[in-house]
Amino acid sequence: MQLRIPGPTPCPEEVLQAQTRQMINHRGKDFAELIVRLTQQLKTFFQTTNDIYILTGSGTGGLEAAVVNTLSPGDKVLGISIGSFGDRFAEIARQYGADVNRIDFEWGTAADPDKVKQVLKKDGPFRAVLVTHNETSTGVTNDLAEISKVVKETDSLLLVDGVSSVGSIDLPVDRWQCDVVITGSQKGWMTPPGLTMLSMSQDAWRAFEQAKMPRFYWDLGKARRFLEEKKQTPWTPAISTLYALGIGMDMMEKETLPKIIERHTRTGAAARAAVKSLGLTLFAEEAHASNTVTAINGPQGVDVKKMLQLMREEYGVVLSGGQSRLEGKIFRIGHLGWVSEADIEEVKRVLQSALARVAPTRSAA
Amino acid sequence: MQLRIPGPTPCPEEVLQAQTRQMINHRGKDFAELIVRLTQQLKTFFQTTNDIYILTGSGTGGLEAAVVNTLSPGDKVLGISIGSFGDRFAEIARQYGADVNRIDFEWGTAADPDKVKQVLKKDGPFRAVLVTHNETSTGVTNDLAEISKVVKETDSLLLVDGVSSVGSIDLPVDRWQCDVVITGSQKGWMTPPGLTMLSMSQDAWRAFEQAKMPRFYWDLGKARRFLEEKKQTPWTPAISTLYALGIGMDMMEKETLPKIIERHTRTGAAARAAVKSLGLTLFAEEAHASNTVTAINGPQGVDVKKMLQLMREEYGVVLSGGQSRLEGKIFRIGHLGWVSEADIEEVKRVLQSALARVAPTRSAA
Repeated sequence: MQLRIPGPTPCPEEVLQAQTRQMINHRGKDFAELIVRLTQQLKTFFQTTNDIYILTGSGTGGLEAAVVNTLSPGDKVLGISIGSFGDRFAEIARQYGADVNRIDFEWGTAADPDKVKQVLKKDGPFRAVLVTHNETSTGVTNDLAEISKVVKETDSLLLVDGVSSVGSIDLPVDRWQCDVVITGSQKGWMTPPGLTMLSMSQDAWRAFEQAKMPRFYWDLGKARRFLEEKKQTPWTPAISTLYALGIGMDMMEKETLPKIIERHTRTGAAARAAVKSLGLTLFAEEAHASNTVTAINGPQGVDVKKMLQLMREEYGVVLSGGQSRLEGKIFRIGHLGWVSEADIEEVKRVLQSALARVAPTRSAA
Repeated sequence: MQLRIPGPTPCPEEVLQAQTRQMINHRGKDFAELIVRLTQQLKTFFQTTNDIYILTGSGTGGLEAAVVNTLSPGDKVLGISIGSFGDRFAEIARQYGADVNRIDFEWGTAADPDKVKQVLKKDGPFRAVLVTHNETSTGVTNDLAEISKVVKETDSLLLVDGVSSVGSIDLPVDRWQCDVVITGSQKGWMTPPGLTMLSMSQDAWRAFEQAKMPRFYWDLGKARRFLEEKKQTPWTPAISTLYALGIGMDMMEKETLPKIIERHTRTGAAARAAVKSLGLTLFAEEAHASNTVTAINGPQGVDVKKMLQLMREEYGVVLSGGQSRLEGKIFRIGHLGWVSEADIEEVKRVLQSALARVAPTRSAA
């Protein structure tokens, strides 16, 4: 099977094999070395000198950690949404009692920094702005540099869902003054799911001191204390997945971050070109199309679910359908982590064959 | 290295190798089969027909899930504590705004069901009672059957930390009317850490409908909906660890639960006998000593940390020290999951050698 979904992404054999190492004591010396090394390595890919924590859970857990460690119930926050994951981030804040103001942009488009600026002026001040860098559900990458500029003209914290961008798409955390940035192991890291990694700026830590949302498992104060004092995590971590992440990052270090970003730029462009060459249309506005996931409109007269099933069962290529309101309407090619232009060529070949079978009349057009 | 700590426990080679299977789509058919099969298998070991959920996180995450899905801020609950993990369970409830009443028993002893009964009468009614079945920090197993009897004479929910007991020590969830029971993959399951599994009774679900504590990542309503409607988890799960858990449970099914419980009874007894034969004393009162972890008083004049270091570095046997207020005062042998009486013999041999070296005068006594 070729897994071409936007996560979990396929893992190189070395990464999978790393998990066969026997368990170690998470309160012992070997673990201390492991967690310190991984935390340090992550800083390169986050392009930051901020603190970084590795927590056991999914990216959604990381989003929750970002919210509950910086905010209090009643805090006014701005949730910028361009899709499912933007909705989710805002919903977490709402669930924990924040006063969530929303700016929603049409799905398939990026957030307009000017509009964000207007809302910041008109309805602010906000304690925090919550924004998705790369919206996996629609295949759109927000212009985070510009959004950061307008947010950082105010005193608001900037909390960034970088789940499907950090380590794949350029996200210089320090340069763009992001206060919290969250990612997940099953994305660009070529590692199985089970870990979420996030960075905390000094301003985020200052907010932490005031933040009153209830928290225990996701409490970054505990994570900080354990890492600083004992080189440990407060709770038993996913040791096998940490082994895997270490090997994944070793491979990434060899390639270097600039080259990884370039490769994703090429595979993203290749994916969009492939789709268009087959007469299909992109769901995302092309100027902001993502380099880690391409969302494609289901062609007229084609049952998207059936087409994906055919590709999976007869060609061994797994793509993703649409999420929530886009279910059945779009499909998505994931191209992040362990992926090359040759992989995109293969997806194109299979997609072409499948299309010809599910919509024979269309292919004559 | 021989890992003889109360988790993470060593994993059989087949379990480690299971993790080398490539990633699959967590929104696809293969995953649906996997999650349904694992969830079903767990019911045998939980001895329950209740709903079971597998969540990505540590056992502490499972404890948090139990609390936030059944309680509201202000709810009066009773936290029974006999050690660190009892303290932790109560602290989670407090953190989320519950009105926590505590009964603390001396560390090393078990909770007295009669005292619990008195408190239930005198200070009740309580919305829930939080109790640890097997207290890993002190090596004590509570008499959960009796505690359940007195709790179930009231209308209180019974939330049970079974992290280091389910699948190792007898815990018939249905017979003992436990409303929520939590365990973790890195304990008796012979699986790496990263998953927490819990059962929800019908009464727990009724409580869920009223429960107002904020929740998102740990929301069992979402877990239920995704499992029922799609055979999925709401968030990307730790796929490799699920593969491992499947193999671990296949091995457990072959041995059968009654035989596994018997084996733990034998290894527990063997551990206690070994310790006493070396002239050491048990930290736990023997009538309630745990069959998954043995806590031993640090012998007079022996630097416990140094002794453990010697065992680790020169004999390759890893034991645990004491936690929180017991740090430096006790040490612990883990014997749960993939462990036999022969393993205990080996620990005894090494412990004897190490003791003779760190306290030569003592060994003559």
